[in-house]
Amino acid sequence: MTDLILTTFDWVPEMPRGYVRDIRVRWALEEAGLPYRVNSVPFRTRDAEHFAHQPFGQVPWLTDGDISIFESGAILLHLGSRSNALMPTDPRGRSEVMEWLFAALNSVEMASLPWSLFVFSGDTTETPGREHLNAFLKARLGHMEPILAERQWLAGPFSVADIAMADVLRLVDRFDGLATHPACRDYVARATARPSFVKARADQMTHFAAAD
Amino acid sequence: MTDLILTTFDWVPEMPRGYVRDIRVRWALEEAGLPYRVNSVPFRTRDAEHFAHQPFGQVPWLTDGDISIFESGAILLHLGSRSNALMPTDPRGRSEVMEWLFAALNSVEMASLPWSLFVFSGDTTETPGREHLNAFLKARLGHMEPILAERQWLAGPFSVADIAMADVLRLVDRFDGLATHPACRDYVARATARPSFVKARADQMTHFAAAD
Repeated sequence: MTDLILTTFDWVPEMPRGYVRDIRVRWALEEAGLPYRVNSVPFRTRDAEHFAHQPFGQVPWLTDGDISIFESGAILLHLGSRSNALMPTDPRGRSEVMEWLFAALNSVEMASLPWSLFVFSGDTTETPGREHLNAFLKARLGHMEPILAERQWLAGPFSVADIAMADVLRLVDRFDGLATHPACRDYVARATARPSFVKARADQMTHFAAAD
Repeated sequence: MTDLILTTFDWVPEMPRGYVRDIRVRWALEEAGLPYRVNSVPFRTRDAEHFAHQPFGQVPWLTDGDISIFESGAILLHLGSRSNALMPTDPRGRSEVMEWLFAALNSVEMASLPWSLFVFSGDTTETPGREHLNAFLKARLGHMEPILAERQWLAGPFSVADIAMADVLRLVDRFDGLATHPACRDYVARATARPSFVKARADQMTHFAAAD
């Protein structure tokens, strides 16, 4: 069994703490009970080696033996293949986890993260493009709402798809974007009440606070 | 060998033709030489069965025997597991394809598609949020540029990661967003010159034109 090493920044400003994407990886590792170490790279200066591991100069990446993986979605799938606490082993079950994982990252987050950029920047100007973007997110949440009202988790048992979707939706919730979508909000509450999330979040907060 | 069935709309307006996401699936199927049929669902009325296959009321989805898969990323991975013309079989090679597939859909398209919503809507108002969004796309393209200047394809041989990334970038190119990123533009040209893309695009155009 090789050492799993999660690499994240040494420090980040207050605002993103608790929301840096290494939390998706920490959460999955805790759910799976896989032992891992956390490695830090500087937030302020990103060198060539950083870009060799993560071509956008971001975090996290995961090292598993001689394989280094960036993109939280790819890391979640990799860990899913190592633990059936994260992904079922039958083809249909795996297929459902994969489609919902991509749904979280390509259908929902593609609307929600740009939306949060506008909210975060305090921008209140209603322009045609902004209206498109608001409608885009509203449509996505509108489709998620009846699904999450009916299901505890997206693809049968809890899986990496829920880690991605819950993390995507909790950022919307942070900016008060789930007020009219109670089933989405309840889902976030249900997911983030899991002991593995609680530990992952506390560990991330402690990690960044240690560098203050 | 089960029948592969690709489901798309029966018709779409002129504007999205050639860019509807079924093209990613057509392209992959053509690259792999896998036989498939195309099934249509109404663009104007989307019924409960449509939502049962695609929870956001969109297209495409792929049926493979008794498994139905939505999300172009999940479909590409599924097809990748069926053909090594789309994804290598060694663990490191597969891992690289996966990270670049997620990079296309979660790091680049998350910036580029919302950006294109603003351009498409003719919105020219510079607001703080808009500046964030422009900077987001510019940063992503800035990191892709040296990578695509050096490599023919993202993860060794041509793969589903290139299908996703090239399709994401060609929408930016359509709205003239690659003018200062020649390596990105050349990559799009290189990818879309492949006979499989040319056929996939022609087939999509013919499909939608047939319903006019």
